Amino acid sequence: MKLAVVGGGSTYTPELVAGLARERERLDLTELVLQDVDSERREVVGGLAGRMLAAAGYDGAHSVTDDLDRAVEDAAFVLIQLRVGGQAARLSDETIPLACGCIGQETTGAGGLGKALRTLPVVLGIASRVRELAGEDAWIVDFTNPVGIVVRGLLDAGHRAVGLCNVAIGLQRFIAHLLGVDPARVAVDQVGLNHLTWVRAVRVDGVDVLPELLAEHGDTLADHVELPRDLLERLGAIPSYYLHYFYFHDAVLEEQRRGTLRAAEVAEIERELLELYRDPTLTTKPALLERRGGAYYSEAATQLVAALATGSGDVQVVDVRNERTITGLAGDDVVELPAAIESSGPRPLPQAPLAPELLGLVQHVAAYERLAARAAVTGDRELVSKALLAHPLIGQVPQVDELTERLLVEGRAYLPQFEATGTLA
Amino acid sequence: MKLAVVGGGSTYTPELVAGLARERERLDLTELVLQDVDSERREVVGGLAGRMLAAAGYDGAHSVTDDLDRAVEDAAFVLIQLRVGGQAARLSDETIPLACGCIGQETTGAGGLGKALRTLPVVLGIASRVRELAGEDAWIVDFTNPVGIVVRGLLDAGHRAVGLCNVAIGLQRFIAHLLGVDPARVAVDQVGLNHLTWVRAVRVDGVDVLPELLAEHGDTLADHVELPRDLLERLGAIPSYYLHYFYFHDAVLEEQRRGTLRAAEVAEIERELLELYRDPTLTTKPALLERRGGAYYSEAATQLVAALATGSGDVQVVDVRNERTITGLAGDDVVELPAAIESSGPRPLPQAPLAPELLGLVQHVAAYERLAARAAVTGDRELVSKALLAHPLIGQVPQVDELTERLLVEGRAYLPQFEATGTLA
Amino acid sequence: MKLAVVGGGSTYTPELVAGLARERERLDLTELVLQDVDSERREVVGGLAGRMLAAAGYDGAHSVTDDLDRAVEDAAFVLIQLRVGGQAARLSDETIPLACGCIGQETTGAGGLGKALRTLPVVLGIASRVRELAGEDAWIVDFTNPVGIVVRGLLDAGHRAVGLCNVAIGLQRFIAHLLGVDPARVAVDQVGLNHLTWVRAVRVDGVDVLPELLAEHGDTLADHVELPRDLLERLGAIPSYYLHYFYFHDAVLEEQRRGTLRAAEVAEIERELLELYRDPTLTTKPALLERRGGAYYSEAATQLVAALATGSGDVQVVDVRNERTITGLAGDDVVELPAAIESSGPRPLPQAPLAPELLGLVQHVAAYERLAARAAVTGDRELVSKALLAHPLIGQVPQVDELTERLLVEGRAYLPQFEATGTLA
Amino acid sequence: MKLAVVGGGSTYTPELVAGLARERERLDLTELVLQDVDSERREVVGGLAGRMLAAAGYDGAHSVTDDLDRAVEDAAFVLIQLRVGGQAARLSDETIPLACGCIGQETTGAGGLGKALRTLPVVLGIASRVRELAGEDAWIVDFTNPVGIVVRGLLDAGHRAVGLCNVAIGLQRFIAHLLGVDPARVAVDQVGLNHLTWVRAVRVDGVDVLPELLAEHGDTLADHVELPRDLLERLGAIPSYYLHYFYFHDAVLEEQRRGTLRAAEVAEIERELLELYRDPTLTTKPALLERRGGAYYSEAATQLVAALATGSGDVQVVDVRNERTITGLAGDDVVELPAAIESSGPRPLPQAPLAPELLGLVQHVAAYERLAARAAVTGDRELVSKALLAHPLIGQVPQVDELTERLLVEGRAYLPQFEATGTLA
Repeated sequence: MKLAVVGGGSTYTPELVAGLARERERLDLTELVLQDVDSERREVVGGLAGRMLAAAGYDGAHSVTDDLDRAVEDAAFVLIQLRVGGQAARLSDETIPLACGCIGQETTGAGGLGKALRTLPVVLGIASRVRELAGEDAWIVDFTNPVGIVVRGLLDAGHRAVGLCNVAIGLQRFIAHLLGVDPARVAVDQVGLNHLTWVRAVRVDGVDVLPELLAEHGDTLADHVELPRDLLERLGAIPSYYLHYFYFHDAVLEEQRRGTLRAAEVAEIERELLELYRDPTLTTKPALLERRGGAYYSEAATQLVAALATGSGDVQVVDVRNERTITGLAGDDVVELPAAIESSGPRPLPQAPLAPELLGLVQHVAAYERLAARAAVTGDRELVSKALLAHPLIGQVPQVDELTERLLVEGRAYLPQFEATGTLA
Repeated sequence: MKLAVVGGGSTYTPELVAGLARERERLDLTELVLQDVDSERREVVGGLAGRMLAAAGYDGAHSVTDDLDRAVEDAAFVLIQLRVGGQAARLSDETIPLACGCIGQETTGAGGLGKALRTLPVVLGIASRVRELAGEDAWIVDFTNPVGIVVRGLLDAGHRAVGLCNVAIGLQRFIAHLLGVDPARVAVDQVGLNHLTWVRAVRVDGVDVLPELLAEHGDTLADHVELPRDLLERLGAIPSYYLHYFYFHDAVLEEQRRGTLRAAEVAEIERELLELYRDPTLTTKPALLERRGGAYYSEAATQLVAALATGSGDVQVVDVRNERTITGLAGDDVVELPAAIESSGPRPLPQAPLAPELLGLVQHVAAYERLAARAAVTGDRELVSKALLAHPLIGQVPQVDELTERLLVEGRAYLPQFEATGTLA
Repeated sequence: MKLAVVGGGSTYTPELVAGLARERERLDLTELVLQDVDSERREVVGGLAGRMLAAAGYDGAHSVTDDLDRAVEDAAFVLIQLRVGGQAARLSDETIPLACGCIGQETTGAGGLGKALRTLPVVLGIASRVRELAGEDAWIVDFTNPVGIVVRGLLDAGHRAVGLCNVAIGLQRFIAHLLGVDPARVAVDQVGLNHLTWVRAVRVDGVDVLPELLAEHGDTLADHVELPRDLLERLGAIPSYYLHYFYFHDAVLEEQRRGTLRAAEVAEIERELLELYRDPTLTTKPALLERRGGAYYSEAATQLVAALATGSGDVQVVDVRNERTITGLAGDDVVELPAAIESSGPRPLPQAPLAPELLGLVQHVAAYERLAARAAVTGDRELVSKALLAHPLIGQVPQVDELTERLLVEGRAYLPQFEATGTLA
Repeated sequence: MKLAVVGGGSTYTPELVAGLARERERLDLTELVLQDVDSERREVVGGLAGRMLAAAGYDGAHSVTDDLDRAVEDAAFVLIQLRVGGQAARLSDETIPLACGCIGQETTGAGGLGKALRTLPVVLGIASRVRELAGEDAWIVDFTNPVGIVVRGLLDAGHRAVGLCNVAIGLQRFIAHLLGVDPARVAVDQVGLNHLTWVRAVRVDGVDVLPELLAEHGDTLADHVELPRDLLERLGAIPSYYLHYFYFHDAVLEEQRRGTLRAAEVAEIERELLELYRDPTLTTKPALLERRGGAYYSEAATQLVAALATGSGDVQVVDVRNERTITGLAGDDVVELPAAIESSGPRPLPQAPLAPELLGLVQHVAAYERLAARAAVTGDRELVSKALLAHPLIGQVPQVDELTERLLVEGRAYLPQFEATGTLA
């Protein structure tokens, strides 16, 4: 089985390679290709990956390339984890919103829209090559943010895709650790949209222990998601960390206005990571990688690939079409929730209706995501404005007008679709 | 046919009486009762109403009373237009949110919730008396704000109720005037929730002229709803004035923080109106009444009563259950849209799906209204918090906590249901 | 000895009358005239004053009049305590700055300037009548705010005037009470400008006990002036309550933006006071008067008049020319500090240099007061702008421009001097 | 004549070397030593300086060293232009205030205090070596910011020092260019404190042309100092660019809160400059240097050294003791104004009194500078708090407390004097 990683020069890759090497038997992995457009990263990250695979005793094929076609040809799985425009673009996703009086975050709010506009066309282009060179049965696993919008775009275009995020597995591992039980026994019923989810039940061996968990470890869990404990208790659910941007919007904005940005931090960590990766004696992922974000992405991706390959029916939290799972959302909305992973793809598990205090916000953001995906594909400036107007954290005309202008003009280097429609003339 | 007006001492009443007197034949009006708990208003407004009816040649029964049972007994229609707590309560609906860093408005946002908590139980109590004394066939027409939540509560309790707001008729008359045509020829396709509506088509003799209307009178219409013209053009719709609180939230908040409140203004106008009404020679509504808000309420109410009474099938914009009219809302959500008014009640006209940039916001507010109605009925403090968390203009934990406390404690004089649950102990 | 009170219909007057009645022997008071332009206040306050004097056994002359000339003719002392424009003008002193993004306070900042512009010309007009009708030896005691600017204007015009404020005596009494000693034994070394003072020593029988006082009663004193205890300790001084507007400017502004204004409160208290004063059985000042502000004004004024009349040399805190008392201020600046009250007038006691952390702020505000007094006298719009630019709480061009326009235009009814210069055309 | 430059590895140095090379005859320059603690800068900047001197035909001694003693020994002039902590410290001068809700600027406000605390002890240490090794007649010319506070500290310690800033010469050259006349014919009467100055007259051949200049070139001048034209006209003076931080404080703060910082920009320019300087074929200062700030510093320094050396009596704007020049300031305040440069040192030219709208602000900042210099020398935490309280742009207790803590703790690496007093324990 051949597996290709697009954006394989990411600093995340050692994490992923560690997982693939560990599970290579179960996956029947025979070829691994890391594709990246950045030659330095190919050399540094590819070099480390090779050393890691060798150290793990992997004897299949392994290559590093900048040639997308060669990478995806005949692949059974294509993992996409790229970042159009690199950390510089991320910085603009954070600074442009802030300059317009909005929070600057790379997946939530206007920054997420900027990223979606840049990213979706590139991912769709890759998916087309996959379809042509690897066939309609090849699976695309998208880890590229904003996952919800990117997967929506992939599915709208008819691709065989599933979205993946490490938020659910991160919380699952954290809770297993808290409870002192094997993670395999713990399941989190996380539901919502990507980066807009709540865990409404935590099952250990199938039994919901969330009330006890909140009673005993409420403070720890609350710290983990940076929200107050009594909010978790009142909702009867654990919101994802990203809800922080909604439930404490003004405080986050004020903090951002006074200070430093995550992008600057990440760029610095990436520089250090690449420096570490160059060390020819390094054959394991360095500890610093944990501060990069993306923890457990490796496990999640490896499990997902294995489950799809074997049709195991394992339950995993993934991003898929809603169909009729969540009442009040449209069938073609892309939701994030537990699904049984079968050979034919993920099958969402049934969900009780969302409480109104969750549903209204989810519906609002889903409407935004619909417009965002359309805007990214069409290069229609009006849809950019409408997406911003539809976002619950923006929604105001002065901000919408200023953001539309700046996102398109300052991001133009990566927005050929808007160039084509004359929007940036 | 007997018609009772609960809250009949309102300064709006002369407007209503003018309409009823004009249409008394078509309505077959034989008895009009104005009920109010305020003796001064009964005397002043009731006195003027009597003079107006006499001047109009009305020869049916007419009385003024503080006795609710006597008023509603055997009534075919009961119009409810009361204000629990009077203008002082309105002032608190405006000042408490502002003191918590939120916009202060009596129907939108936290102020609207404060009003709903106070008002819904009172209206439900009245409705119970109506059911008992006037029978199940009597119609309740609710003009009491927040109309969407109040009507939701009435319908949830099984009452025969319909909600009414003057926004739609106001715009329809304004447009008829702009076009220089008879209002009877103009229909506005207004859709959404009460005070959260957009006009997506304006028909003259059945033909949609909205595009031409925006092209020729865009500036005038934009001024009318206090929003920028290009927003109307981009949405292809005319938002209600209340969308201002969403589309220009920060600007409105800043203006409120620097200045005066509508409640103070209205209290002053009311004082002046009552002074004018005392004039024993006055037999028509004074011009100042137009500045009170509520213009054309008389026409709307009179038309609605006439249509229900005669089963005319006339199309009017009213507040009713959604059933399956707007895709993406629940069947029991209360929506505001055109309906054919038949003897059996309003029958919503079919509606094209809402564009995502409208739908997401509508869904979000509908979730809030569901929680607000429940909170008002149950006296459950947690539901107050959840309603605030579910509102797109609030939704943040610090504001939610402070507002919950202050709305309940400062409003306690009118919140016996929370007193009963021990919330205010 | 004849004493005239201009603005004698003030709700403060009963406080003053109580003091004069008590000390009538020492003062050798033979005639008291209360002058006021407001007939209702003359009747109500004058009535109460008459009853109080009678109850106290005063057998001198007593009259109430609207005739300024009659009031001041041959008076030995004229106390001025008027409010041009009444509480409505005070409300505009609070709301106009707030509408321009500045704190709204009637003596500090832009509101104080608005009051100065209205007030100084009126006081100067009265002073001219005093000079003509009572002669150059008559004393003018000014209690009219902003005292610093008004007294500066009076002295610039050559009048025999001294300013008086109740802040110092209020603190002195408070401290005496804390220490449980007779107030006559306590002296506060308060120094600075009116409403911008610090108490640098508190002497009991001539010995400075401030360090011990802060150690034992620091929290109570800090609460009294609404500032944190450790600030008092670090400064080694007790700032006046008005320093709150400087040391906690943003917090005060935010509080004002969220809430209610002092003017509205005071207007309400005044209404209640006048109601109480009407009671024909009332012969003493009601307790509510204490909430009006102005406590101990009566004592201060009575003492000052007695000391000037007798040349006792008593030390009192008053507003006088700096001469060379405070290093770093100009000789003609008007300062507030302890002075020996002699027949020829107050003689400031020597002062150690102000610490830089006090001096810089005092110099800055003194420059503002110089410009404010000039602006009020000349009706020169440019000087209004310069005064605002020179104020440490304003000092920014956008605020200066907006405030200049609004203070002059909205206050025009009481600004004939600007009308005359064509500024308001 | 030997001239030493402390901080000679500054990217400014090529500008200075260009001037010294040009004027080497007049200066009778026989030895130039560039001292710097940074080896890379010594190599790169020193290398370029050597090439420039050679290209200019300079045949005196020239050396580059890290040895302070060797550098200053027997020097007639020591120019100090260092930056303690480099651009990283500058970044903290900008970010710490911003994180506390204040503007972040390296010379004005809290950032300037941070810089003063770090810098003054280092400069005083250097000055002691100068006194010992070069004698009491050697001149120290300080270009190190904050110049006003550093020079105050130097003079307080008895050193023979004069401060220099390029603001005055920059404006003079700009105006000469505007008028199309030789700069030698233009004199600017700039007065105030360092970075808090106003030009009250512009003389061409001794005749004041400021009114005509404002009339004809008002917009250009206003743009140059980033202030509105009508402000210049109303003040009858041209404020320095740094007044922007006072006159438009809130707007600057808002801009900073939304955006990028000057330090990041300067660090980038410095990186590019050093890259350019490495070019072995480069023998002139590159154009990019103009964007670094510091334009004409070379001319100003060269002229000042020449005038002091020859006792020419030339008039230059420098930073010196006030003595009795500006009324209302203390004799030991350090002011920035035109002085005749004689062998014995600068002799300030007489100055008309400052208008109140200038004086109050100047006095306020002078009080701050007095406290800032004392705090830097003593390591007394209380004086840091008092300096912040005394600054007109800070002055509020919450900000003072937070800034004191953060400036000292985050800057501790360069604040041994506070370490010594136990403040940072």
